[in-house]
Amino acid sequence: MPTATVSTPFRSSGIVTLTTDFGLVDPFVGVLKGRILQRFRDARIVDLTHAVTPHRPAEAGFWLGRSFEYFPAGTVHVAVVDPGVGGTRSIAVLEAEGHLFLAPDNGLLSGVVDRLAAEPVIRLLDLELLPRLGIRPPSSTFHGRDIFAPISAEVASGRLPPDQLGPAGAQLVSGPSARPRLEPGQATGVVMTIDHFGNLLTNLDAALLADIADPVVRAGGRDMPLQRTYSDARPGEYVALINSFGVLEIARTEMSAAAGLGLEPGAPVVVQGRGRCSATRSG
Amino acid sequence: MPTATVSTPFRSSGIVTLTTDFGLVDPFVGVLKGRILQRFRDARIVDLTHAVTPHRPAEAGFWLGRSFEYFPAGTVHVAVVDPGVGGTRSIAVLEAEGHLFLAPDNGLLSGVVDRLAAEPVIRLLDLELLPRLGIRPPSSTFHGRDIFAPISAEVASGRLPPDQLGPAGAQLVSGPSARPRLEPGQATGVVMTIDHFGNLLTNLDAALLADIADPVVRAGGRDMPLQRTYSDARPGEYVALINSFGVLEIARTEMSAAAGLGLEPGAPVVVQGRGRCSATRSG
Amino acid sequence: MPTATVSTPFRSSGIVTLTTDFGLVDPFVGVLKGRILQRFRDARIVDLTHAVTPHRPAEAGFWLGRSFEYFPAGTVHVAVVDPGVGGTRSIAVLEAEGHLFLAPDNGLLSGVVDRLAAEPVIRLLDLELLPRLGIRPPSSTFHGRDIFAPISAEVASGRLPPDQLGPAGAQLVSGPSARPRLEPGQATGVVMTIDHFGNLLTNLDAALLADIADPVVRAGGRDMPLQRTYSDARPGEYVALINSFGVLEIARTEMSAAAGLGLEPGAPVVVQGRGRCSATRSG
Repeated sequence: MPTATVSTPFRSSGIVTLTTDFGLVDPFVGVLKGRILQRFRDARIVDLTHAVTPHRPAEAGFWLGRSFEYFPAGTVHVAVVDPGVGGTRSIAVLEAEGHLFLAPDNGLLSGVVDRLAAEPVIRLLDLELLPRLGIRPPSSTFHGRDIFAPISAEVASGRLPPDQLGPAGAQLVSGPSARPRLEPGQATGVVMTIDHFGNLLTNLDAALLADIADPVVRAGGRDMPLQRTYSDARPGEYVALINSFGVLEIARTEMSAAAGLGLEPGAPVVVQGRGRCSATRSG
Repeated sequence: MPTATVSTPFRSSGIVTLTTDFGLVDPFVGVLKGRILQRFRDARIVDLTHAVTPHRPAEAGFWLGRSFEYFPAGTVHVAVVDPGVGGTRSIAVLEAEGHLFLAPDNGLLSGVVDRLAAEPVIRLLDLELLPRLGIRPPSSTFHGRDIFAPISAEVASGRLPPDQLGPAGAQLVSGPSARPRLEPGQATGVVMTIDHFGNLLTNLDAALLADIADPVVRAGGRDMPLQRTYSDARPGEYVALINSFGVLEIARTEMSAAAGLGLEPGAPVVVQGRGRCSATRSG
Repeated sequence: MPTATVSTPFRSSGIVTLTTDFGLVDPFVGVLKGRILQRFRDARIVDLTHAVTPHRPAEAGFWLGRSFEYFPAGTVHVAVVDPGVGGTRSIAVLEAEGHLFLAPDNGLLSGVVDRLAAEPVIRLLDLELLPRLGIRPPSSTFHGRDIFAPISAEVASGRLPPDQLGPAGAQLVSGPSARPRLEPGQATGVVMTIDHFGNLLTNLDAALLADIADPVVRAGGRDMPLQRTYSDARPGEYVALINSFGVLEIARTEMSAAAGLGLEPGAPVVVQGRGRCSATRSG
């Protein structure tokens, strides 16, 4: 087993976050929490979101990669968006910046890896752990309850150190690429997700736009200048800004930008220096 | 008062689960939790679901009966789907397998009773307890907050033993029957609920299908073989399988089976040995 | 600094409630909780609601004013419905009846002030506190995470007494008035919010209707007598009653009154003594 080196080693805070596509209609999330509490009565469980678009691991990774830093070091982050459950996919364990991430190895964690300053320690869960920990054989359709919950409880309780989860040095399978395309004076990204207000969140990080002078944002056939805050615009106006998660966001003041522009996740968003946009209509 | 005998006596774990049709739009659930915390600051409260179809106690009982085992023994399960609130219905208290259940006596708990190996201890809540516990007279429309919350807090805190809630040996009123119909080589059930993914969950337990050789599932005019896991099918295909809660489920890979088949709760689902289905179209 | 006098001084219970318009689709609420836990690992965080109509502070205030009493004294109530985030609005801190409220100073807290028997202590948050507490400069769009969360954690943990948040004696900006109009034998209010069941909740408190003999409720062109409980009516019938939060509510037994009457928040609701309503059709 290679020696794992990591800047900030994981020491459990007893906190577990959950990110799934289970929704809140059924008791799936509640049952997963029950399973955690069966093994770790004092776990503090926080819902990150259960409304990931079903079967879209990249969206879960996008949010997780931009959210984990707001939790205490020592948090176990469980993400289950798992269309391949019951098949042959592995379960990935990623240790970085004092946090631990558990997710199906289906590309979900790319959104976390992309955000890290240092190399994470990556393991694939050793399934021979399950009987040793008294975890009954999992169902073929609900590994969230049957594997992720008890394993996260064992780790969060401090009883199971991460280095017992599997050998370090594993490789993650790569997810569908959602990396922006960069050219001189221009960056092209996509809408990653639409939030509760109808704001369009893109994969264009602030740093990618730093070299574009006087930037104009184009999406859905409309051009918008990059502004500082929502309150710079009147109700109904479109606003493009770097949002509080550090990515380019297109909002419409007190309305839904997604509905107004007719855009969905995957739609292209282009940022250009203003001189190159003169032929297009101003928003 | 008859002597209550129960295989595993209830000893509180301090955990309370909530199952309601209150939704998450209004602060009803939050207020119920506040009332619990007023009497038991250290309660660990877990939402099972608040999206039961309004006024459909049987759906709450279906989920509760299939979920409670995933919680630690000593959990108090509060279920409030209560179209008769303010009328004459009683409040039922059921003790079984080390768990305690509180619900309106309107048939809701049938879904739990059906799942038990041994006879539960059943009580009807003695309302004379309320003033003795300093619980102010309840509103006529929100017993979840005014009765269920403080009583569950008293029980979960360990201050109020279940045998003080009322005399054992009570009878539950029976809910609308949702028991499957069994014939040689055939079982007929109904769709009990539709989950977040559009999967159809039925009241047909795995055990009921054990004697049907080479079973075919028929629902919405379509025949489907019984398979082992979602990943046996390609996107868009229908899959019938025994799900992770032990009941027959009809799914459509990466799509909504409910929308595709046009089925709603209550729709019939038939499982037959394959020889008897030859005249119908294959799924 | 004027001396603050308040009937029940605030002593933290360690409980924090959250009321926002963030929804549960995105991880905004989860991230806010993470930030609280970073500073106060043992906080007990309760969601009141995250489904306030976007950018409608009055709805948040309506619910908060009618919900806070169901939580233990010593609770910190954080309400973030904040269309002016990033602009010049202040953050208001209100201390009353042993509870502490934090919200944008945009009229939101009027719904709380209207419910108090005694004058609250009002402060505007001193932003110079932020660097002193090690709170990094806030984003311009997510003060819930960047200011409200760490401040509420400091207060709820007991480390930061309310009198250090800012000088007492501040004035709140006034929100859009939603006060009922009272005439002899008649009270006119509006629909404040529509709950999960489609019930219409108004701003007409029970006390306002006490002097109206034999009251009839008129809304959406329909007259309804004031009844005691939902179970007084048959399925499909409209029921007007004083609900469990002490306000006039219009329900439709086992159906949605909002859909049936075609009413939305802001729609007028009139209560009159019966003699004055004889010309209108009976519900």
